[in-house]
Amino acid sequence: MSGRCRVDAPAGGVPGQTRAMSEFDDATAVDADGRCWIHGGWDIGGNANGGYLMAIAANGLRQVAGRPDPVTVTAHYLSPGTPGEAAVTGEVVKAGKRFSSVTGALVSGGRTIIQVLGSFGDLATNAASDFVSTNGAPPDLPPIDQCIARSPEQGGVPVPLMDRLDVHLHPDHAGWLRGEKTRVGEVAGWLSFRDGRPIDTLGLLLVADALPPAVFNLDIPAGWVPTVEMTVHVRAIPAPGPVRCVFRTRFVHGGMFEEDGEVWDSSGVLVALSRQLALLPR
Amino acid sequence: MSGRCRVDAPAGGVPGQTRAMSEFDDATAVDADGRCWIHGGWDIGGNANGGYLMAIAANGLRQVAGRPDPVTVTAHYLSPGTPGEAAVTGEVVKAGKRFSSVTGALVSGGRTIIQVLGSFGDLATNAASDFVSTNGAPPDLPPIDQCIARSPEQGGVPVPLMDRLDVHLHPDHAGWLRGEKTRVGEVAGWLSFRDGRPIDTLGLLLVADALPPAVFNLDIPAGWVPTVEMTVHVRAIPAPGPVRCVFRTRFVHGGMFEEDGEVWDSSGVLVALSRQLALLPR
Repeated sequence: MSGRCRVDAPAGGVPGQTRAMSEFDDATAVDADGRCWIHGGWDIGGNANGGYLMAIAANGLRQVAGRPDPVTVTAHYLSPGTPGEAAVTGEVVKAGKRFSSVTGALVSGGRTIIQVLGSFGDLATNAASDFVSTNGAPPDLPPIDQCIARSPEQGGVPVPLMDRLDVHLHPDHAGWLRGEKTRVGEVAGWLSFRDGRPIDTLGLLLVADALPPAVFNLDIPAGWVPTVEMTVHVRAIPAPGPVRCVFRTRFVHGGMFEEDGEVWDSSGVLVALSRQLALLPR
Repeated sequence: MSGRCRVDAPAGGVPGQTRAMSEFDDATAVDADGRCWIHGGWDIGGNANGGYLMAIAANGLRQVAGRPDPVTVTAHYLSPGTPGEAAVTGEVVKAGKRFSSVTGALVSGGRTIIQVLGSFGDLATNAASDFVSTNGAPPDLPPIDQCIARSPEQGGVPVPLMDRLDVHLHPDHAGWLRGEKTRVGEVAGWLSFRDGRPIDTLGLLLVADALPPAVFNLDIPAGWVPTVEMTVHVRAIPAPGPVRCVFRTRFVHGGMFEEDGEVWDSSGVLVALSRQLALLPR
């Protein structure tokens, strides 16, 4: 899949596609030639959110794969994503019985924004095994109305992404907004789309990078923490309703840290695991 | 980097390279044209170990990158690796100030064995930040001589890899060898090369997949658990001596599970984090 991009931002989705039903569908639309658009409004201080960029790429690559669900997707973040025309390029490396594996990229302005490797499948089909074992639980969150609503203006840097997403942080984890840090690298909260769009398997890729960095609760200055690489495992199709998320950073050294995420749906099923490698602010 | 492969297995490394100093160096040698060899003896029941395959690929791709350390490497496992001629192909997607990102593959017999995406750097250079935060500790292991030595013949399936690696399991985690399962998805142990080769950043990729699957302690039949994808973050250059590893599986559903690994060096530094997505035996 390849192709040049449209020059004008799509108002109602990419031409030739059905009018998208939500902001997220609009903002991640990729046509059959791979043409797409990095939209404004999904950024943190002008840089497009990493999960949003992964979602655009995965939406293109799942068309290449011919399978609907991004089961495991890895992106390496090479250039900041700024609003404008873009394209998803990719090719199938192997079409197997259960998964199709695809290598590809999101490119814009002559640069590779993210390079991607993913395996796509259909999580609605019956699994080969019905064995279940769970050693863990959703984060222990107060009801949404007792959590701290994120707004685009909090915390020093404008976060327009919070106009798209309804994020409510655990009150114990939100003190850094007032300069009060827990000194434990953990941030948990509720998340849903503001326009009511259900969180599907593509949406989980955005969710995996949408809370404030867990390191903001450590004794470092809050600032841009560039992601080197992020991998998301989508483990099930989410039930309707807001998801509960927790992100943790346990190990910071050598100027690098990991952030591990869990996303749980309203029925108490773990629907995604994420891990990213990121850099401390210089 | 590309090229056809030699037809005879190299006895002393790939021609044109200096005689390799260890079994692992021999078995992961890749020449300047990408030619290499999947060696026997690094397998579980005839299938080459996934960490071994990743190490071959990363050894080729770090030459492509021109940077010595695999900082974050993802492999998707597409075909079993059987002994024979092979090649590492790859290209630099971006050569940045700190990392070079490479996409590539290990191919053999006309098939892609693994598809790889990685960012390589030089972990010996000074980090941009000396901030350290650690929320965790090495696994609490008895001394090596009080742990359970793995042998190639244990557990029903021959594991020739254990002739290369000296693995001693925590006694509490090794009961599955006798059919006694803990029902907690955790396996910890000591690990070193039998021939005394130090574990460097390339060796950590092998280490990340070298213990028995943590799910063997759950109520499933022990059997081949195919890896879909594995990502390893190499966080520091290991100090000399055996490493301590722990692998945990917390969530099994939909026929899939994750396995999360931590590798700690002899000085108590977390040197690698790994995560793989794998399938239950059918």
